[in-house]
Amino acid sequence: MKNQLYKYLNRYAKFDNVDIELIYKNGVIQTYDNKEFLLEQNSVCKYKYFISKGLVRQYKVEDSGNENISAFAIENWWITNLDSFINETNSLNAIQALEETTVLQITKENLEHLYSKIPKLERAFRIISENMLIAFQRKNELHMNKNSEKRYYNFVEKLPNFSQRVPQYMIASYLNITPEYLSEIRKK
Amino acid sequence: MKNQLYKYLNRYAKFDNVDIELIYKNGVIQTYDNKEFLLEQNSVCKYKYFISKGLVRQYKVEDSGNENISAFAIENWWITNLDSFINETNSLNAIQALEETTVLQITKENLEHLYSKIPKLERAFRIISENMLIAFQRKNELHMNKNSEKRYYNFVEKLPNFSQRVPQYMIASYLNITPEYLSEIRKK
Repeated sequence: MKNQLYKYLNRYAKFDNVDIELIYKNGVIQTYDNKEFLLEQNSVCKYKYFISKGLVRQYKVEDSGNENISAFAIENWWITNLDSFINETNSLNAIQALEETTVLQITKENLEHLYSKIPKLERAFRIISENMLIAFQRKNELHMNKNSEKRYYNFVEKLPNFSQRVPQYMIASYLNITPEYLSEIRKK
Repeated sequence: MKNQLYKYLNRYAKFDNVDIELIYKNGVIQTYDNKEFLLEQNSVCKYKYFISKGLVRQYKVEDSGNENISAFAIENWWITNLDSFINETNSLNAIQALEETTVLQITKENLEHLYSKIPKLERAFRIISENMLIAFQRKNELHMNKNSEKRYYNFVEKLPNFSQRVPQYMIASYLNITPEYLSEIRKK
């Protein structure tokens, strides 16, 4: 885990082993079973999760019973419900493991402590947040494209790891199309 | 402008007058007329804009001729097409002034220089980017709400400044409803 974190964070700024050790000490390593919840819907998201191994989804069960998936995340991604994590309000979404998933989970308090001790971490998260904003922007542009077939091909092209590991009906939910229609597209 | 920037940035971290002077020197103050473009569709977004006075929208003219508005911004907001600004690709969106608008515009190169000289700026933009991510998340949740009337009331409640300054047909575009339907809601 430490080695993975070292490699990952050094993409954004120069972190040394002392920094990594401090980050590691301020988090807790936890393994979630397949289907287990990292965050339950309507509860406060207490952690920012760095995924060391595995796959999770962020989603909401609507009043109608429909599942609406807003995000997937795999190795070397951070996931949290940011609104809930920052503002300490109940999250409208749940975060659930879709494979056995190992994370380093860090509380808001410890993360604030880390920012004050390791200013480079501000730079890393400034860049990570900007990348997330760009991903959001691209997803919105993808969804504005009314052609579902193009949306699917774009998804497979940009995120090949996901389309192999995530059940098809969840990809359909993420792309806002019916599983039947996705199956038709895949047959072509 | 300097005083405004000082007050604004001190919301996020402790900046002194020397910092503000340096930021100010690395940008250019520019005033755009009502309807003038800060960024044309299909060109590279060369600046991050701090709005000192005025109102702008970010939007896309679709192949069908429809306008699709993705964002508004007023005083004390930053606006850019982040994907285009960071990756130096053509922007799918335009940014246009909806009132006479005065900005401090900063190039990517100068911003990188400022980050290296003033590490606190990393903190400020880390927080600003997180706030934008939360705003995106909330907008998505708002749009998932199929009830257009609720969407409108939520918009007016959360962003009262916009609903008074932005033409109704643009609010309809932003909320993804027809101007006629918005007019009906407002009559109630």
